[in-house]
Amino acid sequence: MVNTPEAASAYHYPLLIKQILLTPLANAPHQEIVSSPGSPVRRYNYRAFYQRIGSLASSLSSLGVAMGDTVAVMDWDSHRYLECFFAVPMMGAILHTVNIRLSPQQILYTINHAEDDIILVHTDFVPILDQISERFERPVKLVLLDDGADTPNLPSGYVAEYESWLSASDGGFDFQDFDENTTATTFYTTGTTGDPKGVAYSHRQLVLHTLGLIAAFSTASGNNRFHKEDVYMPMTPMFHVHGWGMPYAATMMGVKQVYPGRYDPEKLLHLIESEQVTFSHCVPTILQMLLSAAQARNVNLSRLKIVIGGAALPEGLAKTALDFGIEVFAAYGLSETCPVITTADLSASVCERGSNEDLARRRKPGKPCALVEVRVVDQDMNDIPRDGKTSGEIVVRAPWLTQTYTKSPEATQALWHGGYLHTGDVGRFDETGSLLITDRIKDVIKSGGEWLSSLDLENIVSRCQGVREVAAIGIPDERWGERPMLIVAQVADAKSNITAEQIREAIRVHVDSGELPKWALPERVEFVDQIDKTSVGKLDKKVLRARYAQ
Amino acid sequence: MVNTPEAASAYHYPLLIKQILLTPLANAPHQEIVSSPGSPVRRYNYRAFYQRIGSLASSLSSLGVAMGDTVAVMDWDSHRYLECFFAVPMMGAILHTVNIRLSPQQILYTINHAEDDIILVHTDFVPILDQISERFERPVKLVLLDDGADTPNLPSGYVAEYESWLSASDGGFDFQDFDENTTATTFYTTGTTGDPKGVAYSHRQLVLHTLGLIAAFSTASGNNRFHKEDVYMPMTPMFHVHGWGMPYAATMMGVKQVYPGRYDPEKLLHLIESEQVTFSHCVPTILQMLLSAAQARNVNLSRLKIVIGGAALPEGLAKTALDFGIEVFAAYGLSETCPVITTADLSASVCERGSNEDLARRRKPGKPCALVEVRVVDQDMNDIPRDGKTSGEIVVRAPWLTQTYTKSPEATQALWHGGYLHTGDVGRFDETGSLLITDRIKDVIKSGGEWLSSLDLENIVSRCQGVREVAAIGIPDERWGERPMLIVAQVADAKSNITAEQIREAIRVHVDSGELPKWALPERVEFVDQIDKTSVGKLDKKVLRARYAQ
Repeated sequence: MVNTPEAASAYHYPLLIKQILLTPLANAPHQEIVSSPGSPVRRYNYRAFYQRIGSLASSLSSLGVAMGDTVAVMDWDSHRYLECFFAVPMMGAILHTVNIRLSPQQILYTINHAEDDIILVHTDFVPILDQISERFERPVKLVLLDDGADTPNLPSGYVAEYESWLSASDGGFDFQDFDENTTATTFYTTGTTGDPKGVAYSHRQLVLHTLGLIAAFSTASGNNRFHKEDVYMPMTPMFHVHGWGMPYAATMMGVKQVYPGRYDPEKLLHLIESEQVTFSHCVPTILQMLLSAAQARNVNLSRLKIVIGGAALPEGLAKTALDFGIEVFAAYGLSETCPVITTADLSASVCERGSNEDLARRRKPGKPCALVEVRVVDQDMNDIPRDGKTSGEIVVRAPWLTQTYTKSPEATQALWHGGYLHTGDVGRFDETGSLLITDRIKDVIKSGGEWLSSLDLENIVSRCQGVREVAAIGIPDERWGERPMLIVAQVADAKSNITAEQIREAIRVHVDSGELPKWALPERVEFVDQIDKTSVGKLDKKVLRARYAQ
Repeated sequence: MVNTPEAASAYHYPLLIKQILLTPLANAPHQEIVSSPGSPVRRYNYRAFYQRIGSLASSLSSLGVAMGDTVAVMDWDSHRYLECFFAVPMMGAILHTVNIRLSPQQILYTINHAEDDIILVHTDFVPILDQISERFERPVKLVLLDDGADTPNLPSGYVAEYESWLSASDGGFDFQDFDENTTATTFYTTGTTGDPKGVAYSHRQLVLHTLGLIAAFSTASGNNRFHKEDVYMPMTPMFHVHGWGMPYAATMMGVKQVYPGRYDPEKLLHLIESEQVTFSHCVPTILQMLLSAAQARNVNLSRLKIVIGGAALPEGLAKTALDFGIEVFAAYGLSETCPVITTADLSASVCERGSNEDLARRRKPGKPCALVEVRVVDQDMNDIPRDGKTSGEIVVRAPWLTQTYTKSPEATQALWHGGYLHTGDVGRFDETGSLLITDRIKDVIKSGGEWLSSLDLENIVSRCQGVREVAAIGIPDERWGERPMLIVAQVADAKSNITAEQIREAIRVHVDSGELPKWALPERVEFVDQIDKTSVGKLDKKVLRARYAQ
């Protein structure tokens, strides 16, 4: 027998986003999708959802949208966004999920760079488009998304309003099969410098990521698992890596879904209660807001499971969430990784709920999802020894990683140096095989071939009495390459000022215990009134490194 | 933006069987794999498992096995078989899982047809090979699989013994990436007539089926779900559609696995108890044997979940299993479908355990798995109305269906007529969207364009007092095409014989209730001493149809 590759077979089955709809339509056609943007709450079932997807494709087609065209969306989390998640790629067009938190200038850049043909714009963002639409580099058709009136006023330059547009459609659309490697979605990610960078995902990648999410979240043995009778609501914007891909997974499972519109803690809480939401995900800031609001009026959140990503889950926040009865745990990924690549492991080992051990495992980025290969490597792509101490860069292979930064061959080459996607995160595996992240690679302090986590240093110093804020950076050193330096801002009304020697002492404890290397003792400690921040409020280590380089 | 297919990208990730091993090695390297064939029980962990896979590939390679070669296995369910499930396809070779229940003549046919280069033979099957090896059409190397002695006697013509062969290997093997559409496995399926037909599966198909199995069995909300802390043991032979693909899914999840060797009810029960097995699968006959043995010595089976396939789950057996505390439920598939395409839906609706409703839903083939499209169609490929009564043929599309019958273009064309795989099963969807199977298409009685299930008629008549066995077939009719006929064998010591009129009366009740059409009343009832059977003990309707056609 010869093992001929059979991709060309007449019966080949390409992986396409439309197939995600097979199971809900067959198995749960009457299950509800709830959208809260307007008033009253809109609710329809998966069968109606599929009809609306057909109407949307038909309407887009009547505006000239065809294979390869790009349809952009600027909306809060709504049923409309979910419909676009399916209809646009199912037509063979590309869905551009516009990050509405960027500056108007950056939004303009992404619209031009992605070569958008049509933009679906929520009324809240019409003023932004008004500012920039004259600088569109190609003809763009605008469609209004309106939460309110049945017959909204169409702003000048807009060709249609979404709901009346869909109502006027004849409904049917014949979604064809095509190459599974066809691009389905695109969006932009921003670093601290330079223009936003475009990433893109194919149908194949999104279908495989959906299966990967399900395999990761549904096979858990504990109460945190995602199952067919959960009620799902995103608290991550849908423009943020497709709401972490969760709307696709929730749809494939045919669960009840709730879309909350613009995030408002009171509204989110109300929906969690009234729609009996059980499964959600968000960044720590949103969870913090939600729990603060919940504390004020004693809401019961004990049926809720929440996946935390986008930033480390702080211990205090995890504790508060557990006190509410929430099953809270971390997952890890990037815009470039679709995003999920690891999830915290809450397997039912002997571990008391809320204990230090339990908190620790909930906060870890965790263990690789199915088909994901995670390595921790040095600069020459050698695996770092698993000694529980040494860190390296986290690199990944998986079936759903972005293949290129759009039109940026150099950035792409750096991203994929050595055949693995470079996360830019520094970390290590702990003794249980869970991934820990210790730093961003650009912030790590590199000395004599060794890496020191700037975050580790900052964590130690931030616990010192009198320290309000601290940044650890590497400064150039002729012999070692770099040496650590601390920039410290003190508490304004501190009784007595903390000294550099006291700070060094605090670090020395961790050196003596073997936790940190000897050279972690800082070369220099500088006291300042304010530490420089980036536009999103993070320590601006780039500026600090430049300032203190001399 | 242009949506260029990116399959050719340097960073493309082909779906390969070796990737199934990524998660257990990263997340559960110390989890156990237990094999019972020899004495004492052999146990090792996933890390050792991976090393043995390397040793096996290295050993096979030293015998000359390369990409495209075929390696056959004749073994009971063992750690060796699991090692072959991975090592052989991971080398780019094809694993031929020989059906050791076929006749020696048929086994010879499959060995020649698959063009086996090497056969790994358990001592139990050496006598069979001795009978046929002279008729091998090409040179074949034989390797012995021995459960017993450390230094077994190598029969003449055998080049090595598995365990000593692996011990002598240097261990490492560099498993390369290659085209995901490369054939990974092949085996043979037998109909009632003609030679066995070869089916084959690619790496891509097996990886996607693995993800599909996990999405189907792990997302269930109830106690029947498959999760990371289950202990898995097959009770379906591994030569039977890769043990229904479950060993691949269990491996991807990194659960403890138990391989029982040759099936013996006492041994299976012992392993279930001693290794704390929680998840298994088998045909009804095996479950029947297991429960009979368990009844004799009052074993606790209440932690067990068992998926039933291969034949309909009888109500009485389901009830007995529930009485043991077993979570028993059906799944559906064929040799041609990798196999799983639907699973019973035990969602937590109001349904008392063991009630008629509960028994009914556990016994249904159930609802489509992720990415599986199931249709019920008439002879022109039109969908049958979902009226809860009309039946049609079940046809399927999914990413893991066999693409061809090997070297049989005509049979392939019939299998894939109209672009869907034809299951040969007749059925319909019930009001909950669950699939019901009512007959095999070749046995259905076709009259005036309508289909009548031979099984429905047989079920009714078999409940009549005095009936030992019954076959319903279609006999030619000039006006209607076919008309139903019954062949009845009576109970030997029946007090009084049942009459044809009494049988017609029993059927008339179901006609009057609207359950069956008027023309279901049989044209003819024939009483016989014995009804013809096939070699596997099924009613031989082909013979019956031929006999009564005049």
